Amino acid sequence: MDNDLNLNQHISHRYNEELEGLRNKVMKMGGMVEKQISRGMKALLSSDTELAEVVSSSDYEINALEVEIDEACMQILARRQPTASDLRLIVTIFKTITDLERIGDEAEKLGRYSILLADENTTPGHYVELRHLGEHVKRMLRDSLDAFARLDADAAMRTIQDDELVNEEFDAISRQLITRMMEDPREIKNALRISWCARALERMGDHTKNICEYLVFLVHGKDIRHTSLEKMQESMGIDLGD
Amino acid sequence: MDNDLNLNQHISHRYNEELEGLRNKVMKMGGMVEKQISRGMKALLSSDTELAEVVSSSDYEINALEVEIDEACMQILARRQPTASDLRLIVTIFKTITDLERIGDEAEKLGRYSILLADENTTPGHYVELRHLGEHVKRMLRDSLDAFARLDADAAMRTIQDDELVNEEFDAISRQLITRMMEDPREIKNALRISWCARALERMGDHTKNICEYLVFLVHGKDIRHTSLEKMQESMGIDLGD
Repeated sequence: MDNDLNLNQHISHRYNEELEGLRNKVMKMGGMVEKQISRGMKALLSSDTELAEVVSSSDYEINALEVEIDEACMQILARRQPTASDLRLIVTIFKTITDLERIGDEAEKLGRYSILLADENTTPGHYVELRHLGEHVKRMLRDSLDAFARLDADAAMRTIQDDELVNEEFDAISRQLITRMMEDPREIKNALRISWCARALERMGDHTKNICEYLVFLVHGKDIRHTSLEKMQESMGIDLGD
Repeated sequence: MDNDLNLNQHISHRYNEELEGLRNKVMKMGGMVEKQISRGMKALLSSDTELAEVVSSSDYEINALEVEIDEACMQILARRQPTASDLRLIVTIFKTITDLERIGDEAEKLGRYSILLADENTTPGHYVELRHLGEHVKRMLRDSLDAFARLDADAAMRTIQDDELVNEEFDAISRQLITRMMEDPREIKNALRISWCARALERMGDHTKNICEYLVFLVHGKDIRHTSLEKMQESMGIDLGD
Protein backbone atom coordinates (compact mmCIF):
# COMPACT_ATOMS: atom_id res chain seq x y z
CA MET A 1 0.00 0.00 0.00
CA ASP A 2 1.35 3.36 -0.96
CA ASN A 3 1.07 5.60 2.06
CA ASP A 4 3.25 7.18 4.68
CA LEU A 5 1.60 5.50 7.61
CA ASN A 6 3.60 3.55 10.07
CA LEU A 7 1.02 2.37 12.53
CA ASN A 8 1.51 -0.43 15.01
CA GLN A 9 5.28 -0.41 14.84
CA HIS A 10 5.99 0.49 18.42
CA ILE A 11 8.52 -1.15 20.64
CA SER A 12 5.83 -1.28 23.32
CA HIS A 13 3.82 -4.38 22.55
CA ARG A 14 1.05 -3.08 24.77
CA TYR A 15 0.75 0.22 22.90
CA ASN A 16 0.48 -1.66 19.57
CA GLU A 17 -2.34 -3.69 21.02
CA GLU A 18 -4.12 -0.59 22.27
CA LEU A 19 -4.08 1.06 18.84
CA GLU A 20 -5.12 -2.17 17.13
CA GLY A 21 -7.91 -2.59 19.68
CA LEU A 22 -9.15 0.93 18.96
CA ARG A 23 -9.29 0.30 15.23
CA ASN A 24 -11.16 -2.95 15.81
CA LYS A 25 -13.71 -1.14 17.96
CA VAL A 26 -14.31 1.41 15.20
CA MET A 27 -14.86 -1.46 12.75
CA LYS A 28 -17.26 -3.06 15.20
CA MET A 29 -19.19 0.20 15.57
CA GLY A 30 -19.29 0.53 11.78
CA GLY A 31 -20.70 -2.98 11.50
CA MET A 32 -23.44 -2.15 14.01
CA VAL A 33 -24.38 0.97 12.07
CA GLU A 34 -24.49 -1.03 8.81
CA LYS A 35 -26.83 -3.50 10.45
CA GLN A 36 -29.10 -0.65 11.59
CA ILE A 37 -29.35 0.66 8.02
CA SER A 38 -30.14 -2.82 6.66
CA ARG A 39 -32.82 -3.38 9.26
CA GLY A 40 -34.24 0.12 8.77
CA MET A 41 -34.52 -0.39 5.01
CA LYS A 42 -36.04 -3.85 5.47
CA ALA A 43 -38.61 -2.52 7.95
CA LEU A 44 -39.50 0.26 5.54
CA LEU A 45 -39.77 -1.79 2.36
CA SER A 46 -41.66 -4.67 3.91
CA SER A 47 -43.80 -2.56 6.29
CA ASP A 48 -42.44 -4.65 9.14
CA THR A 49 -43.45 -2.62 12.19
CA GLU A 50 -41.97 -5.11 14.62
CA LEU A 51 -38.54 -4.75 13.04
CA ALA A 52 -39.10 -0.98 12.84
CA GLU A 53 -39.60 -0.90 16.60
CA VAL A 54 -36.33 -2.76 17.07
CA VAL A 55 -34.50 -0.27 14.81
CA SER A 56 -35.99 2.78 16.47
CA SER A 57 -35.06 1.61 19.96
CA SER A 58 -31.67 -0.07 19.61
CA ASP A 59 -29.28 2.79 18.98
CA TYR A 60 -28.18 2.67 22.62
CA GLU A 61 -25.60 -0.02 21.82
CA ILE A 62 -24.03 2.17 19.15
CA ASN A 63 -24.09 5.16 21.48
CA ALA A 64 -22.46 3.20 24.28
CA LEU A 65 -19.69 2.04 21.97
CA GLU A 66 -19.13 5.64 20.82
CA VAL A 67 -18.62 6.79 24.40
CA GLU A 68 -16.34 3.80 25.07
CA ILE A 69 -14.13 4.55 22.04
CA ASP A 70 -14.01 8.24 22.94
CA GLU A 71 -12.77 7.39 26.41
CA ALA A 72 -10.20 4.94 25.06
CA CYS A 73 -8.87 7.66 22.72
CA MET A 74 -8.59 10.10 25.63
CA GLN A 75 -6.72 7.49 27.66
CA ILE A 76 -4.23 6.90 24.87
CA LEU A 77 -3.72 10.64 24.33
CA ALA A 78 -3.07 11.15 28.04
CA ARG A 79 -0.87 8.10 28.68
CA ARG A 80 0.92 7.51 25.37
CA GLN A 81 1.15 11.09 24.08
CA PRO A 82 1.12 9.94 20.46
CA THR A 83 2.69 11.98 17.68
CA ALA A 84 2.67 11.98 13.87
CA SER A 85 0.55 9.23 12.30
CA ASP A 86 -0.55 7.78 15.65
CA LEU A 87 -1.88 11.18 16.65
CA ARG A 88 -3.65 11.49 13.30
CA LEU A 89 -5.19 8.05 13.89
CA ILE A 90 -6.64 9.14 17.23
CA VAL A 91 -8.01 12.41 15.83
CA THR A 92 -9.45 10.51 12.84
CA ILE A 93 -11.17 8.09 15.17
CA PHE A 94 -12.65 10.92 17.28
CA LYS A 95 -14.22 12.39 14.18
CA THR A 96 -15.15 9.12 12.48
CA ILE A 97 -17.18 7.79 15.39
CA THR A 98 -19.14 11.06 15.61
CA ASP A 99 -20.24 10.58 12.00
CA LEU A 100 -20.89 6.87 12.50
CA GLU A 101 -23.11 7.67 15.44
CA ARG A 102 -25.05 10.19 13.34
CA ILE A 103 -25.52 7.64 10.56
CA GLY A 104 -27.00 5.44 13.27
CA ASP A 105 -29.36 8.30 14.23
CA GLU A 106 -30.52 8.61 10.62
CA ALA A 107 -31.06 4.84 10.40
CA GLU A 108 -33.18 5.07 13.54
CA LYS A 109 -35.35 7.62 11.72
CA LEU A 110 -36.02 5.04 8.98
CA GLY A 111 -37.49 2.86 11.71
CA ARG A 112 -39.66 5.68 13.07
CA TYR A 113 -40.99 6.71 9.64
CA SER A 114 -41.65 3.04 8.76
CA ILE A 115 -44.01 2.84 11.71
CA LEU A 116 -45.87 5.99 10.62
CA LEU A 117 -46.09 4.78 7.02
CA ALA A 118 -47.30 1.33 8.03
CA ASP A 119 -49.98 2.95 10.21
CA GLU A 120 -51.39 4.66 7.14
CA ASN A 121 -51.78 1.37 5.29
CA THR A 122 -49.76 2.61 2.37
CA THR A 123 -48.63 0.03 -0.12
CA PRO A 124 -44.88 -0.46 0.26
CA GLY A 125 -44.58 -0.46 -3.54
CA HIS A 126 -45.07 3.29 -3.33
CA TYR A 127 -41.63 3.84 -1.93
CA VAL A 128 -39.69 1.23 -3.80
CA GLU A 129 -37.65 4.11 -5.26
CA LEU A 130 -35.96 4.29 -1.89
CA ARG A 131 -34.60 0.76 -2.27
CA HIS A 132 -31.98 1.79 -4.78
CA LEU A 133 -30.88 4.80 -2.73
CA GLY A 134 -30.69 2.64 0.40
CA GLU A 135 -28.53 0.04 -1.37
CA HIS A 136 -26.27 2.77 -2.67
CA VAL A 137 -25.74 4.34 0.74
CA LYS A 138 -25.10 0.96 2.35
CA ARG A 139 -22.47 0.18 -0.29
CA MET A 140 -20.83 3.56 0.34
CA LEU A 141 -20.57 2.86 4.06
CA ARG A 142 -19.30 -0.70 3.42
CA ASP A 143 -16.62 0.71 1.07
CA SER A 144 -15.58 3.39 3.54
CA LEU A 145 -15.21 0.85 6.36
CA ASP A 146 -13.16 -1.42 4.08
CA ALA A 147 -11.01 1.58 3.20
CA PHE A 148 -10.57 2.33 6.90
CA ALA A 149 -9.58 -1.28 7.64
CA ARG A 150 -7.00 -1.26 4.84
CA LEU A 151 -6.03 2.42 5.31
CA ASP A 152 -6.69 2.82 1.60
CA ALA A 153 -6.94 6.52 0.72
CA ASP A 154 -7.56 5.86 -2.98
CA ALA A 155 -10.62 3.77 -2.17
CA ALA A 156 -11.78 6.54 0.19
CA MET A 157 -11.47 9.07 -2.62
CA ARG A 158 -13.62 6.90 -4.90
CA THR A 159 -16.27 6.68 -2.18
CA ILE A 160 -16.22 10.47 -1.83
CA GLN A 161 -17.09 10.67 -5.53
CA ASP A 162 -19.97 8.23 -4.98
CA ASP A 163 -21.71 10.77 -2.76
CA GLU A 164 -22.46 12.95 -5.77
CA LEU A 165 -24.50 10.09 -7.27
CA VAL A 166 -26.37 9.68 -4.01
CA ASN A 167 -27.26 13.38 -4.09
CA GLU A 168 -28.49 13.06 -7.68
CA GLU A 169 -30.66 10.08 -6.76
CA PHE A 170 -32.06 12.03 -3.84
CA ASP A 171 -32.95 14.96 -6.10
CA ALA A 172 -34.69 12.64 -8.56
CA ILE A 173 -36.76 11.06 -5.78
CA SER A 174 -37.70 14.50 -4.44
CA ARG A 175 -38.95 15.59 -7.86
CA GLN A 176 -41.00 12.40 -8.24
CA LEU A 177 -42.57 12.94 -4.83
CA ILE A 178 -43.52 16.53 -5.59
CA THR A 179 -45.24 15.38 -8.78
CA ARG A 180 -47.11 12.69 -6.88
CA MET A 181 -48.26 15.19 -4.24
CA MET A 182 -49.52 17.59 -6.87
CA GLU A 183 -51.39 14.84 -8.70
CA ASP A 184 -53.05 13.53 -5.58
CA PRO A 185 -53.13 15.83 -2.54
CA ARG A 186 -54.37 12.94 -0.38
CA GLU A 187 -50.88 11.51 -0.83
CA ILE A 188 -49.15 14.57 0.64
CA LYS A 189 -48.62 13.24 4.14
CA ASN A 190 -47.14 9.93 3.05
CA ALA A 191 -45.09 11.46 0.27
CA LEU A 192 -43.55 13.79 2.87
CA ARG A 193 -42.68 10.85 5.10
CA ILE A 194 -41.06 9.09 2.17
CA SER A 195 -39.11 12.26 1.40
CA TRP A 196 -37.88 12.34 5.03
CA CYS A 197 -36.64 8.76 4.58
CA ALA A 198 -34.88 9.83 1.37
CA ARG A 199 -33.36 12.77 3.24
CA ALA A 200 -32.16 10.46 6.03
CA LEU A 201 -30.43 8.26 3.44
CA GLU A 202 -28.92 11.30 1.71
CA ARG A 203 -27.50 12.49 5.03
CA MET A 204 -26.00 9.06 5.67
CA GLY A 205 -24.14 9.56 2.39
CA ASP A 206 -22.85 12.93 3.63
CA HIS A 207 -21.59 11.44 6.87
CA THR A 208 -19.92 8.57 5.01
CA LYS A 209 -18.20 11.12 2.78
CA ASN A 210 -16.93 12.89 5.91
CA ILE A 211 -15.47 9.61 7.18
CA CYS A 212 -13.63 9.10 3.89
CA GLU A 213 -12.22 12.63 4.08
CA TYR A 214 -10.85 11.96 7.55
CA LEU A 215 -9.27 8.77 6.23
CA VAL A 216 -7.46 10.64 3.46
CA PHE A 217 -6.20 13.02 6.15
CA LEU A 218 -5.01 10.05 8.22
CA VAL A 219 -3.12 8.43 5.35
CA HIS A 220 -1.74 11.50 3.60
CA GLY A 221 -1.61 13.93 6.51
CA LYS A 222 -3.52 16.39 4.37
CA ASP A 223 -6.88 17.95 5.17
CA ILE A 224 -9.09 17.64 2.10
CA ARG A 225 -12.35 18.88 3.53
CA HIS A 226 -13.77 21.84 1.66
CA THR A 227 -11.60 21.02 -1.36
CA SER A 228 -12.94 20.13 -4.80
CA LEU A 229 -12.25 16.64 -6.14
CA GLU A 230 -10.17 18.05 -9.00
CA LYS A 231 -7.90 19.95 -6.63
CA MET A 232 -7.46 16.86 -4.46
CA GLN A 233 -6.41 14.73 -7.42
CA GLU A 234 -3.99 17.42 -8.51
CA SER A 235 -2.35 17.95 -5.14
CA MET A 236 -2.06 14.29 -4.24
CA GLY A 237 -1.50 12.73 -7.62
CA ILE A 238 -4.39 10.35 -7.01
CA ASP A 239 -5.91 8.73 -10.08
CA LEU A 240 -9.62 8.22 -9.58
CA GLY A 241 -10.23 6.62 -12.98
CA ASP A 242 -13.33 7.52 -14.93
CA MET B 1 -17.56 29.55 39.00
CA ASP B 2 -18.04 26.08 40.37
CA ASN B 3 -16.07 23.71 38.23
CA ASP B 4 -12.95 21.60 38.37
CA LEU B 5 -11.25 23.31 35.46
CA ASN B 6 -7.84 24.75 35.81
CA LEU B 7 -7.13 26.09 32.37
CA ASN B 8 -4.41 28.59 31.56
CA GLN B 9 -2.41 28.02 34.71
CA HIS B 10 0.76 26.79 33.15
CA ILE B 11 4.24 27.85 34.03
CA SER B 12 4.92 28.17 30.32
CA HIS B 13 3.61 31.59 29.36
CA ARG B 14 3.66 30.56 25.72
CA TYR B 15 1.50 27.48 26.33
CA ASN B 16 -1.07 29.62 28.16
CA GLU B 17 -1.18 31.91 25.19
CA GLU B 18 -1.64 29.03 22.79
CA LEU B 19 -4.63 27.67 24.68
CA GLU B 20 -6.14 31.13 25.07
CA GLY B 21 -5.58 31.76 21.35
CA LEU B 22 -7.39 28.54 20.50
CA ARG B 23 -10.41 29.47 22.57
CA ASN B 24 -10.51 32.89 20.97
CA LYS B 25 -10.49 31.31 17.52
CA VAL B 26 -13.42 29.11 18.44
CA MET B 27 -15.30 32.20 19.63
CA LYS B 28 -14.43 33.95 16.38
CA MET B 29 -15.70 30.98 14.36
CA GLY B 30 -18.88 30.96 16.43
CA GLY B 31 -19.38 34.66 15.72
CA MET B 32 -19.01 34.05 11.99
CA VAL B 33 -21.58 31.26 12.10
CA GLU B 34 -23.99 33.49 14.05
CA LYS B 35 -23.62 36.14 11.37
CA GLN B 36 -24.39 33.58 8.65
CA ILE B 37 -27.62 32.60 10.41
CA SER B 38 -28.64 36.24 10.82
CA ARG B 39 -27.98 37.00 7.19
CA GLY B 40 -29.69 33.78 6.05
CA MET B 41 -32.82 34.64 8.02
CA LYS B 42 -32.81 38.23 6.79
CA ALA B 43 -32.43 37.10 3.17
CA LEU B 44 -35.30 34.68 3.63
CA LEU B 45 -37.73 36.98 5.40
CA SER B 46 -37.12 40.00 3.18
CA SER B 47 -36.72 38.03 -0.10
CA ASP B 48 -33.31 39.67 -0.47
CA THR B 49 -31.68 37.57 -3.22
CA GLU B 50 -28.50 39.64 -3.21
CA LEU B 51 -27.92 38.89 0.46
CA ALA B 52 -28.97 35.27 -0.16
CA GLU B 53 -26.19 34.97 -2.75
CA VAL B 54 -23.69 36.29 -0.21
CA VAL B 55 -24.86 33.74 2.38
CA SER B 56 -24.79 30.82 -0.02
CA SER B 57 -21.27 31.59 -1.20
CA SER B 58 -19.42 32.76 1.90
CA ASP B 59 -18.99 29.64 3.97
CA TYR B 60 -15.39 29.32 2.80
CA GLU B 61 -14.20 31.67 5.57
CA ILE B 62 -15.80 29.49 8.22
CA ASN B 63 -14.38 26.35 6.59
CA ALA B 64 -10.89 27.85 6.45
CA LEU B 65 -11.05 28.74 10.13
CA GLU B 66 -12.19 25.22 10.97
CA VAL B 67 -9.16 23.73 9.22
CA GLU B 68 -6.88 26.29 10.93
CA ILE B 69 -8.22 25.46 14.41
CA ASP B 70 -7.98 21.73 13.70
CA GLU B 71 -4.32 22.13 12.78
CA ALA B 72 -3.61 24.27 15.83
CA CYS B 73 -5.16 21.58 18.05
CA MET B 74 -2.99 18.90 16.41
CA GLN B 75 0.09 21.05 16.97
CA ILE B 76 -0.68 21.49 20.65
CA LEU B 77 -1.37 17.77 21.09
CA ALA B 78 1.92 16.90 19.42
CA ARG B 79 4.12 19.52 21.09
CA ARG B 80 2.53 20.09 24.49
CA GLN B 81 1.09 16.63 25.13
CA PRO B 82 -1.68 18.02 27.28
CA THR B 83 -3.36 16.00 30.00
CA ALA B 84 -6.47 16.30 32.20
CA SER B 85 -8.54 19.44 31.60
CA ASP B 86 -6.21 20.78 28.88
CA LEU B 87 -6.66 17.55 26.97
CA ARG B 88 -10.42 17.75 27.43
CA LEU B 89 -10.31 21.32 26.12
CA ILE B 90 -8.58 20.21 22.92
CA VAL B 91 -10.97 17.30 22.37
CA THR B 92 -13.94 19.60 23.08
CA ILE B 93 -12.65 22.06 20.50
CA PHE B 94 -12.20 19.32 17.86
CA LYS B 95 -15.81 18.34 18.28
CA THR B 96 -17.24 21.83 18.75
CA ILE B 97 -15.83 23.21 15.52
CA THR B 98 -17.22 20.27 13.55
CA ASP B 99 -20.71 21.17 14.77
CA LEU B 100 -20.13 24.90 14.24
CA GLU B 101 -19.10 24.20 10.65
CA ARG B 102 -22.26 22.16 10.10
CA ILE B 103 -24.42 24.93 11.53
CA GLY B 104 -22.72 27.13 8.92
CA ASP B 105 -23.70 24.59 6.23
CA GLU B 106 -27.32 24.73 7.36
CA ALA B 107 -27.26 28.54 7.33
CA GLU B 108 -25.93 28.39 3.78
CA LYS B 109 -29.00 26.34 2.87
CA LEU B 110 -31.22 29.18 4.11
CA GLY B 111 -29.52 31.33 1.50
CA ARG B 112 -30.05 28.79 -1.27
CA TYR B 113 -33.73 28.22 -0.45
CA SER B 114 -34.31 32.00 -0.20
CA ILE B 115 -33.21 32.32 -3.81
CA LEU B 116 -35.60 29.58 -4.94
CA LEU B 117 -38.47 31.08 -2.93
CA ALA B 118 -37.82 34.59 -4.24
CA ASP B 119 -37.80 33.21 -7.81
CA GLU B 120 -41.34 31.98 -7.32
CA ASN B 121 -42.58 35.43 -6.32
CA THR B 122 -44.01 34.13 -3.09
CA THR B 123 -45.03 36.66 -0.52
CA PRO B 124 -42.55 36.58 2.34
CA GLY B 125 -45.47 36.80 4.76
CA HIS B 126 -46.12 33.18 3.96
CA TYR B 127 -43.15 32.03 5.90
CA VAL B 128 -43.17 34.45 8.76
CA GLU B 129 -43.64 31.42 11.04
CA LEU B 130 -39.97 30.74 10.48
CA ARG B 131 -38.98 34.05 12.09
CA HIS B 132 -39.70 32.84 15.59
CA LEU B 133 -37.86 29.56 15.05
CA GLY B 134 -34.88 31.42 13.58
CA GLU B 135 -34.72 33.80 16.55
CA HIS B 136 -34.90 30.90 18.94
CA VAL B 137 -32.06 28.99 17.27
CA LYS B 138 -29.89 32.11 17.13
CA ARG B 139 -30.44 32.69 20.83
CA MET B 140 -29.50 29.06 21.56
CA LEU B 141 -26.23 29.45 19.67
CA ARG B 142 -25.51 32.80 21.36
CA ASP B 143 -26.10 31.22 24.77
CA SER B 144 -23.91 28.23 23.98
CA LEU B 145 -21.04 30.47 22.86
CA ASP B 146 -21.40 32.58 26.01
CA ALA B 147 -21.34 29.37 28.05
CA PHE B 148 -18.20 28.29 26.21
CA ALA B 149 -16.51 31.64 26.86
CA ARG B 150 -17.33 31.45 30.56
CA LEU B 151 -16.96 27.65 30.80
CA ASP B 152 -20.40 27.63 32.37
CA ALA B 153 -21.80 24.08 32.39
CA ASP B 154 -25.06 25.11 34.08
CA ALA B 155 -25.82 27.56 31.28
CA ALA B 156 -24.96 24.82 28.77
CA MET B 157 -27.45 22.49 30.44
CA ARG B 158 -30.19 25.12 30.18
CA THR B 159 -29.44 25.52 26.48
CA ILE B 160 -29.69 21.74 26.02
CA GLN B 161 -33.20 21.96 27.44
CA ASP B 162 -34.02 24.72 24.94
CA ASP B 163 -33.57 22.32 22.07
CA GLU B 164 -36.76 20.51 23.03
CA LEU B 165 -38.71 23.73 22.47
CA VAL B 166 -37.05 24.18 19.08
CA ASN B 167 -38.16 20.67 18.13
CA GLU B 168 -41.72 21.43 19.23
CA GLU B 169 -41.77 24.62 17.15
CA PHE B 170 -40.45 22.68 14.18
CA ASP B 171 -43.23 20.10 14.52
CA ALA B 172 -45.87 22.82 14.71
CA ILE B 173 -44.54 24.48 11.54
CA SER B 174 -44.48 21.12 9.74
CA ARG B 175 -48.12 20.48 10.62
CA GLN B 176 -49.12 23.97 9.40
CA LEU B 177 -47.32 23.42 6.14
CA ILE B 178 -48.99 20.06 5.52
CA THR B 179 -52.38 21.69 6.04
CA ARG B 180 -51.48 24.47 3.63
CA MET B 181 -50.36 21.99 0.97
CA MET B 182 -53.56 19.98 1.28
CA GLU B 183 -55.71 23.11 1.03
CA ASP B 184 -53.91 24.42 -2.03
CA PRO B 185 -51.82 21.94 -4.02
CA ARG B 186 -50.33 24.80 -6.03
CA GLU B 187 -48.54 25.75 -2.80
CA ILE B 188 -46.80 22.36 -2.50
CA LYS B 189 -43.46 23.32 -3.98
CA ASN B 190 -43.04 26.45 -1.89
CA ALA B 191 -44.37 24.85 1.25
CA LEU B 192 -41.74 22.15 0.81
CA ARG B 193 -38.99 24.74 0.48
CA ILE B 194 -40.20 26.47 3.62
CA SER B 195 -40.21 23.11 5.39
CA TRP B 196 -36.59 22.57 4.30
CA CYS B 197 -35.71 25.94 5.86
CA ALA B 198 -37.48 24.88 9.05
CA ARG B 199 -35.55 21.60 8.97
CA ALA B 200 -32.26 23.49 8.53
CA LEU B 201 -33.07 25.59 11.60
CA GLU B 202 -34.07 22.52 13.58
CA ARG B 203 -30.75 20.88 12.73
CA MET B 204 -28.88 24.01 13.86
CA GLY B 205 -30.58 23.48 17.22
CA ASP B 206 -29.35 19.87 17.30
CA HIS B 207 -25.76 20.91 16.57
CA THR B 208 -25.93 23.63 19.23
CA LYS B 209 -27.14 21.05 21.70
CA ASN B 210 -24.13 18.88 20.81
CA ILE B 211 -21.80 21.80 21.51
CA CYS B 212 -23.37 22.29 24.93
CA GLU B 213 -22.94 18.59 25.71
CA TYR B 214 -19.24 18.79 24.87
CA LEU B 215 -18.95 21.79 27.16
CA VAL B 216 -20.47 19.90 30.08
CA PHE B 217 -17.92 17.17 29.38
CA LEU B 218 -15.14 19.76 29.38
CA VAL B 219 -16.17 21.30 32.68
CA HIS B 220 -17.27 18.21 34.59
CA GLY B 221 -15.17 15.58 32.81
CA LYS B 222 -18.35 13.59 32.33
CA ASP B 223 -19.80 12.45 29.03
CA ILE B 224 -23.51 13.32 29.02
CA ARG B 225 -24.35 12.46 25.44
CA HIS B 226 -27.12 9.89 25.15
CA THR B 227 -28.22 10.63 28.72
CA SER B 228 -31.63 11.94 29.70
CA LEU B 229 -31.87 15.38 31.30
CA GLU B 230 -33.22 13.88 34.51
CA LYS B 231 -30.27 11.54 34.83
CA MET B 232 -27.82 14.36 34.19
CA GLN B 233 -29.32 16.51 36.91
CA GLU B 234 -29.24 13.60 39.31
CA SER B 235 -25.64 12.59 38.66
CA MET B 236 -24.22 16.09 38.68
CA GLY B 237 -26.42 17.78 41.19
CA ILE B 238 -27.21 20.51 38.69
CA ASP B 239 -30.30 22.56 39.30
CA LEU B 240 -31.96 23.58 36.06
CA GLY B 241 -34.77 25.49 37.68
CA ASP B 242 -38.25 25.23 36.13
